[in-house]
Amino acid sequence: MRILVVNVNTTTSITESIGIQAAEAASPGTEIVPLTPEFGAESVEGNYESYLAAVSVMEAVRAYPQPFDAVIQAGYGEHGREGLQELLDVPVVDITEAAASTAQFLGHRYSVVTTLDRTVPLIEDRLRLAGLLDRCASVRASGLPVLALEEDAEAAVKAIVEQAARAVEDDKAEVICLGCGGMAGLAERVTERTGVPVVDGVAAAVTIAESLVRLGLSTSKVRTYAAPRPKTVKNWPPRWV
Amino acid sequence: MRILVVNVNTTTSITESIGIQAAEAASPGTEIVPLTPEFGAESVEGNYESYLAAVSVMEAVRAYPQPFDAVIQAGYGEHGREGLQELLDVPVVDITEAAASTAQFLGHRYSVVTTLDRTVPLIEDRLRLAGLLDRCASVRASGLPVLALEEDAEAAVKAIVEQAARAVEDDKAEVICLGCGGMAGLAERVTERTGVPVVDGVAAAVTIAESLVRLGLSTSKVRTYAAPRPKTVKNWPPRWV
Amino acid sequence: MRILVVNVNTTTSITESIGIQAAEAASPGTEIVPLTPEFGAESVEGNYESYLAAVSVMEAVRAYPQPFDAVIQAGYGEHGREGLQELLDVPVVDITEAAASTAQFLGHRYSVVTTLDRTVPLIEDRLRLAGLLDRCASVRASGLPVLALEEDAEAAVKAIVEQAARAVEDDKAEVICLGCGGMAGLAERVTERTGVPVVDGVAAAVTIAESLVRLGLSTSKVRTYAAPRPKTVKNWPPRWV
Amino acid sequence: MRILVVNVNTTTSITESIGIQAAEAASPGTEIVPLTPEFGAESVEGNYESYLAAVSVMEAVRAYPQPFDAVIQAGYGEHGREGLQELLDVPVVDITEAAASTAQFLGHRYSVVTTLDRTVPLIEDRLRLAGLLDRCASVRASGLPVLALEEDAEAAVKAIVEQAARAVEDDKAEVICLGCGGMAGLAERVTERTGVPVVDGVAAAVTIAESLVRLGLSTSKVRTYAAPRPKTVKNWPPRWV
Amino acid sequence: MRILVVNVNTTTSITESIGIQAAEAASPGTEIVPLTPEFGAESVEGNYESYLAAVSVMEAVRAYPQPFDAVIQAGYGEHGREGLQELLDVPVVDITEAAASTAQFLGHRYSVVTTLDRTVPLIEDRLRLAGLLDRCASVRASGLPVLALEEDAEAAVKAIVEQAARAVEDDKAEVICLGCGGMAGLAERVTERTGVPVVDGVAAAVTIAESLVRLGLSTSKVRTYAAPRPKTVKNWPPRWV
Amino acid sequence: MRILVVNVNTTTSITESIGIQAAEAASPGTEIVPLTPEFGAESVEGNYESYLAAVSVMEAVRAYPQPFDAVIQAGYGEHGREGLQELLDVPVVDITEAAASTAQFLGHRYSVVTTLDRTVPLIEDRLRLAGLLDRCASVRASGLPVLALEEDAEAAVKAIVEQAARAVEDDKAEVICLGCGGMAGLAERVTERTGVPVVDGVAAAVTIAESLVRLGLSTSKVRTYAAPRPKTVKNWPPRWV
Repeated sequence: MRILVVNVNTTTSITESIGIQAAEAASPGTEIVPLTPEFGAESVEGNYESYLAAVSVMEAVRAYPQPFDAVIQAGYGEHGREGLQELLDVPVVDITEAAASTAQFLGHRYSVVTTLDRTVPLIEDRLRLAGLLDRCASVRASGLPVLALEEDAEAAVKAIVEQAARAVEDDKAEVICLGCGGMAGLAERVTERTGVPVVDGVAAAVTIAESLVRLGLSTSKVRTYAAPRPKTVKNWPPRWV
Repeated sequence: MRILVVNVNTTTSITESIGIQAAEAASPGTEIVPLTPEFGAESVEGNYESYLAAVSVMEAVRAYPQPFDAVIQAGYGEHGREGLQELLDVPVVDITEAAASTAQFLGHRYSVVTTLDRTVPLIEDRLRLAGLLDRCASVRASGLPVLALEEDAEAAVKAIVEQAARAVEDDKAEVICLGCGGMAGLAERVTERTGVPVVDGVAAAVTIAESLVRLGLSTSKVRTYAAPRPKTVKNWPPRWV
Repeated sequence: MRILVVNVNTTTSITESIGIQAAEAASPGTEIVPLTPEFGAESVEGNYESYLAAVSVMEAVRAYPQPFDAVIQAGYGEHGREGLQELLDVPVVDITEAAASTAQFLGHRYSVVTTLDRTVPLIEDRLRLAGLLDRCASVRASGLPVLALEEDAEAAVKAIVEQAARAVEDDKAEVICLGCGGMAGLAERVTERTGVPVVDGVAAAVTIAESLVRLGLSTSKVRTYAAPRPKTVKNWPPRWV
Repeated sequence: MRILVVNVNTTTSITESIGIQAAEAASPGTEIVPLTPEFGAESVEGNYESYLAAVSVMEAVRAYPQPFDAVIQAGYGEHGREGLQELLDVPVVDITEAAASTAQFLGHRYSVVTTLDRTVPLIEDRLRLAGLLDRCASVRASGLPVLALEEDAEAAVKAIVEQAARAVEDDKAEVICLGCGGMAGLAERVTERTGVPVVDGVAAAVTIAESLVRLGLSTSKVRTYAAPRPKTVKNWPPRWV
Repeated sequence: MRILVVNVNTTTSITESIGIQAAEAASPGTEIVPLTPEFGAESVEGNYESYLAAVSVMEAVRAYPQPFDAVIQAGYGEHGREGLQELLDVPVVDITEAAASTAQFLGHRYSVVTTLDRTVPLIEDRLRLAGLLDRCASVRASGLPVLALEEDAEAAVKAIVEQAARAVEDDKAEVICLGCGGMAGLAERVTERTGVPVVDGVAAAVTIAESLVRLGLSTSKVRTYAAPRPKTVKNWPPRWV
Repeated sequence: MRILVVNVNTTTSITESIGIQAAEAASPGTEIVPLTPEFGAESVEGNYESYLAAVSVMEAVRAYPQPFDAVIQAGYGEHGREGLQELLDVPVVDITEAAASTAQFLGHRYSVVTTLDRTVPLIEDRLRLAGLLDRCASVRASGLPVLALEEDAEAAVKAIVEQAARAVEDDKAEVICLGCGGMAGLAERVTERTGVPVVDGVAAAVTIAESLVRLGLSTSKVRTYAAPRPKTVKNWPPRWV
């Protein structure tokens, strides 16, 4: 089984760590293919960048040669999953939804800890549309931008662990979803501090994608996610894709 | 006052009729500037096309020379409004939200009548996120694609009027929002048949944009719609924009 | 265009400042007619007074000679708008709903700052019924009664600015609706302190009423707001009206 | 124990039948005092009439000499209960809420059958604010006005029974609340046809009022329903009250 | 009238105090029969114990000789009420729902104060399913286990009063429901400290059960609570029942 | 990896077919252990039977010798999952939630098709508590009891396929969850008729359980699902267990 795991930003070191996380979660026999979009922001922390990522991810997947068995959109709280579902016959899994969906099997309520405060409403909106917000205790921000996770990992970990602890103590979360990229040992540190299970979206998405493939299930094509109707699309895609 | 009214598809005849509708609703002294995106589908009827439109509309607005006072995104149920709000300091009004918001001043519940059934969930999702779904009695589809509205206007009108009548009689709508482009006389025909007020999104959006400008109000920049952070954006925009 | 702006209490100095606010927001050519009810409380801060105001406002409007083009009910969180809609063929705009509806075009979530804590549930209930509560971050009270706004304006402004700041910082509001009468410079002071746009309900209502009139739209009469059925009404209205 | 049961319209024959219904439900030792308001419509079927009734009921209760132990507002879906709660120290029970609250002990979902279609949204709004709408399967109208219940009882019964049957069969209601006045045998006829329990709002309200009195419980005065603040109320009440 | 009041745990001293509370609330002529289940935990503070209690309560009621007129399940936030409704033709009242339903007649919002924090989600879930959560301001835990209420009543009272005060001040509750057993004077102490009405679930349930019996109403049998279909039930009930 | 799959009724032929379904969905290396409870009804079609099953399933799992890695509760819409989560340190997956959670990755809205109409509210309640109801288009009943699925498989299949078709056409479901046991070819028949993906709860639960185990995740023990506190449990379990 081959699963494309598509980063939403254009920073290849992040694609690499996403790929490593995905590979660790994958079953034997699953090939993880990490992809970086051709265009877009070096980190996605808002709607403009997220819409651009939505389109860029779609083009990256369209340009990748068949066959593959599933696609994971590896950005937290980003736009675009519905478009991928229209374009593809294979299952598409968004890591925001994968994490929340998994968390709901583990505790009565879950919280998400993410990077910048400005992305909190995006994540909440994605969870609301996915029907996964009822059991969300809170979405909390560490205040650190995405790229800081790579620059000063220790400070990032501390800030995230702190917010996770507040989610458990103040918001009564029983599970934490990590709404940010893969730092070594982050999940362990959060669990150590809070005593609750920690869900990584990329890992969760890999197991869900594998499960859908094994069950022979894919996106319903009867209405919302039917393939785009044949029509003229002007000036698209750009030449470099 | 100058208001950009941006079509979401690349069909210029639709841009023209949107421009005419907008101009009819505008106050004396308001200049309406209709814009057509440089890239994208000839009609937007699904998520892939809508995400592409989101990005294309943003680039069209970014490329348009300042000054202008407000922007209207003239596509029903489409993605992208939040991105425009980040990019601009002037108010941004989406016609889906403008219509629903206006309808709520006119009756206890409203319905939307749109084109293809596959776009119904997109419209519902946009209204849900906008907090405008509680008083929505139904979103109904005429079954005719966007471009058919231009090709066989009479058939389109009949199908839309029929769904509007069912919304009023079966779903107890007291107001109809037209979730599709501007055919001459459509609103009159619907009102004649159903006896309820009919809201055109483009016209509603023009009055709301004018009102915001006159009140000196624009998008809040403290959190969700803060300007994008300065960062490297790779390979974007494409050369032709 | 002539718009009646009806105060909900019987204090004429408040009617006057409402009238001034309304006139400032009005377009050239719009005549603002401020009305004070014939009976009722000097300030409305609870349900008994609000129900009395509902009836008194309706009688004031019924007694005012035609023609006029729209009516604004200028009380925050008060009862009665639905009754006016039944009695009239012209549009009716409530300032609570006008403010919230306008705020939703400006930020992801809004808060209301009002006078006494006891009126908070009334405002919440009005917003809930109007389908405008989903994006309301909080309704906060300054703790000062309505008439105190006139007596010690500086203290009132301070208390309101303080609650607005807490709404932005603690409740994550991105827009503030002023749920209380027109003090000079209040909006400016709140914006200065919080950095967010501030919506005044009276001003917002004027632009919405003007917009509805210009669009040729008025209350739907097919169901909820149909004119009262012809019937015997005993002992009403009282002689002085 | 003395309980005031206040009609919302000025038709004394309806007051009488409400009084009889209430007396039948009352415990030994409970005195039922039926009251007719001094002013208002002969039947209440819309918001204007309902707001007028709200005020008229409040004045009727204020004018009635103490002591009494509880007040029942005997109109289905009407405004005003919150005002009574402010004015009084004794418990206030609205029959719409009493019926729904009782129905919820009897089945998974309940429906309301009422008179005219135009009153359906009023009832839904009252239930929504009361937090009693979640388990409401539907509010259905027989299409007959209030006074028709007295004029052609048999036709009224038939129309009501028919809607009750549709509520049970189509909407999956397990309990029916009668949202209209007391016709002899109506409940029996509905139960006979549908097999489900039928709740009469007046009877339910009597038992709830008695229960609150026996438990020594009354309206909380700490916030929403605190007594009106002392203030000047102009021109009110009218002379005849 | 005979009402069975069934404890959910197997501690007979608790059954006794429940019986005393129930008897104090009962009308003259009502016989209260307190029952202790044959099997189960000495106190119920979680789902395992609560499910066991559900079954044990059902067997206790099935084993009790007819006739009786109503059954009260006297555990806060416990499972099982729906099963009793299937087994019996007489009304069944759960004290969690009785308290909330009663509280809603007394104030705009209510809070529940209970024992251990771990039971808070159970209570919230019961209220959600009962459609009674909308007006719940909070469910708060005193931190003391059920049996501690008997061991150190004074400490328990203090902890409960403290949480009630925070519910009123911080969460804006206007009524308190006591989600724990009957300590002498607890309600008085809470009212004294907070100034709000306090609802005891057992007492509320007694008056509701009496009311339903007097109104001739019982559980609807058409769908959800129809009697179990005739079928083979293996190895049940256990020999000692 | 060893996964217990526990039937909720005492019919061993059903346990067997559940075991076969589970084994087909399991990865190589996963051992499926089907369990039948020691006591309870031959089929579970209502609350009484479901509560009994909840307890019986818990005892069956407690009696089964460690080690095992996960437990699946294989009854649609049944009580008890929360109790198992308290008792165990390994993950617990309910098939109702597994099916809905999986369906949400496949389409915008899903429907459930189950057996008897009386079980519909149980399923809806389970989905509501699980936070999985927002995207549920409908729960439909075929009208056939559980055991009929074994007795006249062809009639059962026809009735289920018919309801699935109505869910897709009338309720706009894009995915169907099978809320009933494993008949050969049922999923294929439904897909053939409706064109939408069909999710079997047992198969979905197996993949989710495996995923949780592989990710090293299990039930959070900090609050709702903490192990039962040490205490005296009287007369339990019965001797035969």
